[in-house]
Amino acid sequence: MPPIISIVGKSDSGKTTLLEKLISEFRKRGYLIGTIKHDIHGFDIDHEGKDSWRHKKAGAVSVVISSPSKLAVIKDTDEDKDLDLLVAEYLPDVDIIFTEGYKRENKPKIEVFRKEIHKELLCLKDENLIALVTNQRFVIGVPCFDIDDVKGLSDFIEEKFLKVQKLPSVSLTINGKYSPLKPFIQEMFINTISGMVSALKGGKEARSIKLTIKLPE
Amino acid sequence: MPPIISIVGKSDSGKTTLLEKLISEFRKRGYLIGTIKHDIHGFDIDHEGKDSWRHKKAGAVSVVISSPSKLAVIKDTDEDKDLDLLVAEYLPDVDIIFTEGYKRENKPKIEVFRKEIHKELLCLKDENLIALVTNQRFVIGVPCFDIDDVKGLSDFIEEKFLKVQKLPSVSLTINGKYSPLKPFIQEMFINTISGMVSALKGGKEARSIKLTIKLPE
Repeated sequence: MPPIISIVGKSDSGKTTLLEKLISEFRKRGYLIGTIKHDIHGFDIDHEGKDSWRHKKAGAVSVVISSPSKLAVIKDTDEDKDLDLLVAEYLPDVDIIFTEGYKRENKPKIEVFRKEIHKELLCLKDENLIALVTNQRFVIGVPCFDIDDVKGLSDFIEEKFLKVQKLPSVSLTINGKYSPLKPFIQEMFINTISGMVSALKGGKEARSIKLTIKLPE
Repeated sequence: MPPIISIVGKSDSGKTTLLEKLISEFRKRGYLIGTIKHDIHGFDIDHEGKDSWRHKKAGAVSVVISSPSKLAVIKDTDEDKDLDLLVAEYLPDVDIIFTEGYKRENKPKIEVFRKEIHKELLCLKDENLIALVTNQRFVIGVPCFDIDDVKGLSDFIEEKFLKVQKLPSVSLTINGKYSPLKPFIQEMFINTISGMVSALKGGKEARSIKLTIKLPE
């Protein structure tokens, strides 16, 4: 699974602006970037009157729009999906994932703090806080980066999450729920399935394998 | 894999309108419907200035927006994905899939034909044509439904594709390509993996299993 880093902070702290700069910097460095935006109030997407919009409005639970250069999926869900599930289902193939929001999940977090806007840190006691991006000095045991020091922050992230040895990984969902696996079980799945796949055409070069199984009731 | 039925026809034949009626009818009958719209010219989605739009514009290859009731994914791709791949990756969990377009794929097709607009049938010689929806009478060996007879058409589709015995199914993609499997190999994957999963917590009730494996270069 690619590393997941959450950019958190109060409203108007500048999360999206920081994300734009990080995305642009990591793209320059040659990485494929995925992002996840948490929108607790629901959101609008697609344009009224378009065919896909009409499919959805008529009652389709999932709508895919596919073109040679872009693909979009819009789905009804019945719960707020956690990050592991979203990444396993929709973003297994990128190098790094930045999320906007998700301060309640236990992923590495970078908080954006601007003294004009905030009184106190959101993640002061959060053990997943790995850095601050701020125009105020804090001594709380994690590195602080100036709001304009995107290069320094990117070096820090790259060193910590991307210049590490890549290991084989597996993610499993059962009936739409992410199912965490112990290391020994992970190894069993990886070895069994990559072994079976390697016997298929093109399977020796497999780097990314996705399997979906449906069992009738 | 759920059945995939393509609604095809020339421009302005009324494909989207028919789809809206079919979606609404199948929804009434209690089915979960997915749709796939083929847009060969590319398409616009999301709204300028929104956070997710800004992530994409800054250079993210994949953007997910997640709320408690809806989820959207927007991805760059480097090719026009075929239907099997789109369904395996994004729509394995619906009961039936209608596509708008995709007349070149070998899926069951329903052609919409209106005599005011067309000179000749698009799929006259297509062995995947299973029905016509038309205001002109044709005798070509497939059933013809009146443009307003959505109920009759839905009965036909339901009988042919949904009231059949459901079998276990597996779909596999290797390095982003759909990999068709022979029946014996399908059975091997289904039995091996559902056996392994059944030993995990919650695995005995597994009806839908998704596995993603990444192997380093």
